[in-house]
Amino acid sequence: MKRRIAILGATGSVGRSTLDLVERSPERFDVVALTARRNVEALAAAARRTGASLAVIADPGQFEDLRRALDGSGCRAAAGPEALVEAAASDADWVMAAIVGCAGLVPTMAAIEAGKTVALANKEALVTAGSLMMDAADRSGANLLPVDSEHNAIFQCLAGSRLADVSRLVLTASGGPFRELSVEEMRVATPEQAIAHPRWSMGAKISVDSATLMNKGLELIEAHHLFGLPSDRIDVVVHPQSVVHSLVEFVDGSLLAQLGSADMRIPIAYTLAWPERMETPSERLSLADIARLDFGRPDLDRFPALRLAREALEGGAGKAIVLNGANEVAVEAFLRREIGFCDISRLVEDALGKFDAPAPASVEEVVALDGETRERASLMVSESCC
Amino acid sequence: MKRRIAILGATGSVGRSTLDLVERSPERFDVVALTARRNVEALAAAARRTGASLAVIADPGQFEDLRRALDGSGCRAAAGPEALVEAAASDADWVMAAIVGCAGLVPTMAAIEAGKTVALANKEALVTAGSLMMDAADRSGANLLPVDSEHNAIFQCLAGSRLADVSRLVLTASGGPFRELSVEEMRVATPEQAIAHPRWSMGAKISVDSATLMNKGLELIEAHHLFGLPSDRIDVVVHPQSVVHSLVEFVDGSLLAQLGSADMRIPIAYTLAWPERMETPSERLSLADIARLDFGRPDLDRFPALRLAREALEGGAGKAIVLNGANEVAVEAFLRREIGFCDISRLVEDALGKFDAPAPASVEEVVALDGETRERASLMVSESCC
Repeated sequence: MKRRIAILGATGSVGRSTLDLVERSPERFDVVALTARRNVEALAAAARRTGASLAVIADPGQFEDLRRALDGSGCRAAAGPEALVEAAASDADWVMAAIVGCAGLVPTMAAIEAGKTVALANKEALVTAGSLMMDAADRSGANLLPVDSEHNAIFQCLAGSRLADVSRLVLTASGGPFRELSVEEMRVATPEQAIAHPRWSMGAKISVDSATLMNKGLELIEAHHLFGLPSDRIDVVVHPQSVVHSLVEFVDGSLLAQLGSADMRIPIAYTLAWPERMETPSERLSLADIARLDFGRPDLDRFPALRLAREALEGGAGKAIVLNGANEVAVEAFLRREIGFCDISRLVEDALGKFDAPAPASVEEVVALDGETRERASLMVSESCC
Repeated sequence: MKRRIAILGATGSVGRSTLDLVERSPERFDVVALTARRNVEALAAAARRTGASLAVIADPGQFEDLRRALDGSGCRAAAGPEALVEAAASDADWVMAAIVGCAGLVPTMAAIEAGKTVALANKEALVTAGSLMMDAADRSGANLLPVDSEHNAIFQCLAGSRLADVSRLVLTASGGPFRELSVEEMRVATPEQAIAHPRWSMGAKISVDSATLMNKGLELIEAHHLFGLPSDRIDVVVHPQSVVHSLVEFVDGSLLAQLGSADMRIPIAYTLAWPERMETPSERLSLADIARLDFGRPDLDRFPALRLAREALEGGAGKAIVLNGANEVAVEAFLRREIGFCDISRLVEDALGKFDAPAPASVEEVVALDGETRERASLMVSESCC
């Protein structure tokens, strides 16, 4: 039987890779619904190619454009937040949740509450609303499949094992472009230096997170929610080649690791075919050609973001929202050259210390707390640059 | 419910490690039967400690010694080949097949035919009688769990996956003590140099096999039988640190790897607790401390044994028996300084070319062909040294 697919965020990087795989295997998949933030043209083209029955543009102002672009295709056009939720809870049985940022929270939650198999590519979902999402999945019977290469690696290593037999998760970190820089050099680092990620081609925000290691800190929080292990049983090891995507240690002393080339289609394919696998056109890894893999301990003095994320995780659900929101504001300010690279972590640390953060009881409360955090963090940025 | 255990070869290295684990978890295991080749004292002591109900010594001439040593213990003594088969087919539900050499074939087959869960530590079982053993397991419903670190690694990586989703197996090889030697240096290598294995402490025979890479060749044949993949989908990669014990590549481009410290109790524990896991006292692996892992291609010119094993595998069941038997004779001759290191592979290649080798139809035929191979190979040794 064909898997019925909805892709929330179909025109972004993860969405496009998902479409690429789905379109290569028309015998396995039926595309039901696609959504995009504002790229009407790409959305309509994908809807026509795949024969989707619903296409949703997030921006209500673009509804007419989308309707015109789909004219005669048989695909219904819709727009706005409620239409996003409709796409998430449509008659698809598999949903890719790849809408970036807090805008993705409500539709992702809708897919989970509808009991779908949900491929989770929206980082905010687990960082800011991890307990809410996991609880909702428990109630609805939804399967949550992580797309991020590290969590997908752990998920693959856990297949066929009982969580009770796991002693430790080990997230690998490339160490980012500043892995060998001194604190003095980091202090004067520019946005251009920070976004030159050595292994994956990514957006500016996530590249800066990779340079501060906040990216790994956020992944630590995600891993905690996804796999239910406490902070002290989730380690981070620096691995510059990014060939080993993460590992699981078991009670007998065995470790299982997942390895692969730096191609997001591999983890996406795992979620698409799960619990089976499907062919991908991804490059095969040759260990003999790679020849050498290095590993080391992260330096928490030079990369305080990792320590802050651990503190936020241990401080409860509200603190993770503050960490995430303040970090986004600080990274944007750094990219606008309003603050220095080392000020990013300093600002996050200040925010964690100053902002009250009760645990949210709903996704709406998460969005509200996130908005409040951003406002206050923006104020802190203005104060610090004047 | 407790797992009922029989250990064939309880006083050897694998047998002792198995006993160590079993005795640490008396709440999980009941020892039913133990066997040994000739170490009456160690066998009787283990039988008393574990409360086994049957102890078998392979050498019939030592029956009286064993009977006396067990006097008053409540454990029945027995001896000889039929008693080994009785132990293998006793009311244990889990059998460790760790009798070394062709002496292990008949009792291992008996355990398989009795439908036990069989932990396979006897290399000859799969190398010389792989098809017979796998067919017998299919008929009886026996589970075959490999103990060898490489095959155990692959078995762990396959848990939770369909064999149809596997594209390739990758066996890791330490490369042995002569990894960086030239052919000229190997020609004059001594037994002392060959048995100094860099990572695992092993017997002389298997250490020499590790130096010639015949060990990896035999493992290639074992992997073929255990996992049902053809020779061209089983690769060997040199990995001097022996931290990654082997890998599985899947159709999507993902690789899963199993890693662990060089402690046979880890794979043995996996077979003991399978499909769950159990605690072991083994040292935990720290990738940050290990810091570096290297990989490379095996050099088939300097290490022809690997090529010969592949040819034997592709040449049918009889050829693998010739490979194994001729190799054992050649290694013994090398250890007695009757032939040089490079003569080992040369003698095996000659034997493969000269000896007819029909596929055996029973374990008895395997034993006969093995005996014949050894006689003829011994003759070749005498001829070559005179």
